[in-house]
Amino acid sequence: MMDALLADAETVSAARRLRHEDDIADAVARAAWTVIAEPGDAVAGTLLRELGAADALDFALGDLPARPLASAMSGDAGAARRALTEARKRWRPRAELRAVRDALCHANDIDARLVTPGDAHWPVALDDLAANAPSALWVRGRTELLVAEPRVSLVGARASSGYGEHVAAEIAGDLAATGTVIVSGGAYGIDGAAHRAALGVDGATIAFLAGGVDRSYPAGHQQLIRQIAEAGAVVSEPPCGAAPTKWRFLARNRLIAALGHATVVIEAGWRSGSLNTAGHAAALGRPLGAVPGPVTSAASAGCHRLLREYDALCVTSAAEVRELWGMSVPSSSLRTTVDPERVRLLDAMSSRSHASVEELARRTGLAPDQVRARLGLLDLEGEVRRDDRGWRRLPAQRD
Amino acid sequence: MMDALLADAETVSAARRLRHEDDIADAVARAAWTVIAEPGDAVAGTLLRELGAADALDFALGDLPARPLASAMSGDAGAARRALTEARKRWRPRAELRAVRDALCHANDIDARLVTPGDAHWPVALDDLAANAPSALWVRGRTELLVAEPRVSLVGARASSGYGEHVAAEIAGDLAATGTVIVSGGAYGIDGAAHRAALGVDGATIAFLAGGVDRSYPAGHQQLIRQIAEAGAVVSEPPCGAAPTKWRFLARNRLIAALGHATVVIEAGWRSGSLNTAGHAAALGRPLGAVPGPVTSAASAGCHRLLREYDALCVTSAAEVRELWGMSVPSSSLRTTVDPERVRLLDAMSSRSHASVEELARRTGLAPDQVRARLGLLDLEGEVRRDDRGWRRLPAQRD
Repeated sequence: MMDALLADAETVSAARRLRHEDDIADAVARAAWTVIAEPGDAVAGTLLRELGAADALDFALGDLPARPLASAMSGDAGAARRALTEARKRWRPRAELRAVRDALCHANDIDARLVTPGDAHWPVALDDLAANAPSALWVRGRTELLVAEPRVSLVGARASSGYGEHVAAEIAGDLAATGTVIVSGGAYGIDGAAHRAALGVDGATIAFLAGGVDRSYPAGHQQLIRQIAEAGAVVSEPPCGAAPTKWRFLARNRLIAALGHATVVIEAGWRSGSLNTAGHAAALGRPLGAVPGPVTSAASAGCHRLLREYDALCVTSAAEVRELWGMSVPSSSLRTTVDPERVRLLDAMSSRSHASVEELARRTGLAPDQVRARLGLLDLEGEVRRDDRGWRRLPAQRD
Repeated sequence: MMDALLADAETVSAARRLRHEDDIADAVARAAWTVIAEPGDAVAGTLLRELGAADALDFALGDLPARPLASAMSGDAGAARRALTEARKRWRPRAELRAVRDALCHANDIDARLVTPGDAHWPVALDDLAANAPSALWVRGRTELLVAEPRVSLVGARASSGYGEHVAAEIAGDLAATGTVIVSGGAYGIDGAAHRAALGVDGATIAFLAGGVDRSYPAGHQQLIRQIAEAGAVVSEPPCGAAPTKWRFLARNRLIAALGHATVVIEAGWRSGSLNTAGHAAALGRPLGAVPGPVTSAASAGCHRLLREYDALCVTSAAEVRELWGMSVPSSSLRTTVDPERVRLLDAMSSRSHASVEELARRTGLAPDQVRARLGLLDLEGEVRRDDRGWRRLPAQRD
């Protein structure tokens, strides 16, 4: 298929305009892979890693035996042969020159770019997905944001509450204002609140769509997604024209989880799709945070589930989100370190009446020597005072 | 001092009425220790364990050398001598026959009981406090509740919110209705809501007071504490007449933490005294839970701190509180296990129009064989149907 693609003037011309770079064959091949394979197709991913995109394409659509795949599958030749046979059946119905050409031309029309591994703006974080890594990314807007640091993925329920949107806006606004790239999914609810807050402080934000970057989904976010494409970046794995199917939403979640240095779920129902993103983040070893909420709110049930079952860290502020990456969580200093005798002695004293050392010893159960020693210290600290009538406490200086 | 106490007819008579048991000497000695030593006095606790209460009392107030204590302090004779010298100075000013007699008579007057180690109703859970274990407990009400199981300690802020009180009432009511003893501190706010909810479902509840059981503290809870003394148990370590000092509040917290099979903090400010109780529970190895709340609520900041810094488990319901003891937390099943091809295929189908296998293969990127195989399964599951015009999805049977 590579020969046909590279012989097509329109395809090559569109690819050149998209890329301004030399290796047109690789770019065209990767564009073709985004057309032919669904996101996360591990057989495609393995072939790409083994053969490179162009050779993988020719191999995939040809009739050669499965040897290149078998070597990557620990030599299980039978399993590799079966997987390749199945995959070829998936890919072939989609392997049309016209579809690839359309994807490239359409991207050109809307001024999108094709970012591929090896590009300066390719986020190597996605390579952690191994065989499930995307073959390329279609991007509208500032491709450099894909490699800006730090990046945090803020996700949550579409059916969010006012509380959740408020917290999302607070946290996203604070983080974006201080240079963190806000990654999310462009959806209603928490996603939208996070994107908007980042835009509101002239911060950077990335929206990963499940369908093509030419499609503003959901429809009610047409304006928001245009704004993100102008000031930030709108990114997708399937090509222009691709519909946002349920599968692509699930597959898209892994990219959000992989791109963020940490993932934070701000509000999520018990079965929210955000938990899928959280699961990917945890599987990738990315720090995972969850914002708690009222236990009476169904919109927080998924977050509490993450805290209980998934070892997510409880985060309540932008500062605590920052602690998820790099900075270590401060060790606990919770056990109250009080001097019990000091507490007892102050308890036993009043600012309105005087007492002798002997009287204080009786009241506190402390030895007179101990009372005397502590009164001296408290005197130095300005907590107590002695006059002719005995010792008394001084009125508190602070609250 | 023991001879003097046992020679005092009024003291012995009061002790007999309180106890209906034989070992009056031990009971009188322990009553005396609650008068002489402040709660949590480790030197007193060590002497009691080494010598028994009666001999410890005579030893404590005599002039014998520190040998019995030294053996319990790993033979550090110097440290033992110094500790005992200090302790004797604390104890002697309080060692008055009259004070012990008053404590016993006063308890009799209000129908309180003295529960001591070895009694059938002595909660052995408190022995986990080792040298800080109480020498005895003064109890108004149903002493048998101290050994009823299971027991859970529900504590929280005095400055609680409507949300916190609601959750405390929900959780305490549910637990108490199903036989769990609710342990708390009798304070305003969360404590009060928990006690009231337990009483409201005719459940069992125990209030640990910082002062004597004859004193209803806080004053506004006079009626509540009377109700607890009638239907549940009001318990204190210091004797009748003792004032609730700040030190005694802190010391009382260790008893709440030790008595509960688990401790749950329902609402707590950043520096709430409930965190002290939580710290004791954690130090004792008791399971610790915290109820989350809005991150915008200062009344939940301490709970979130417990989740972040203290490894408390997030609990949102009575059922999750029950999981804290005995029952293991279910392992996570969060990662969505979906059959991706199944999802893709259903995505591509409609209940309003028909499609052929070939059309579905094109739409999904699946091989025709795969489409056919999955359609067969989905047909069996009642998800899809074929007729003359092709395959279509059936309307969803459930939400």
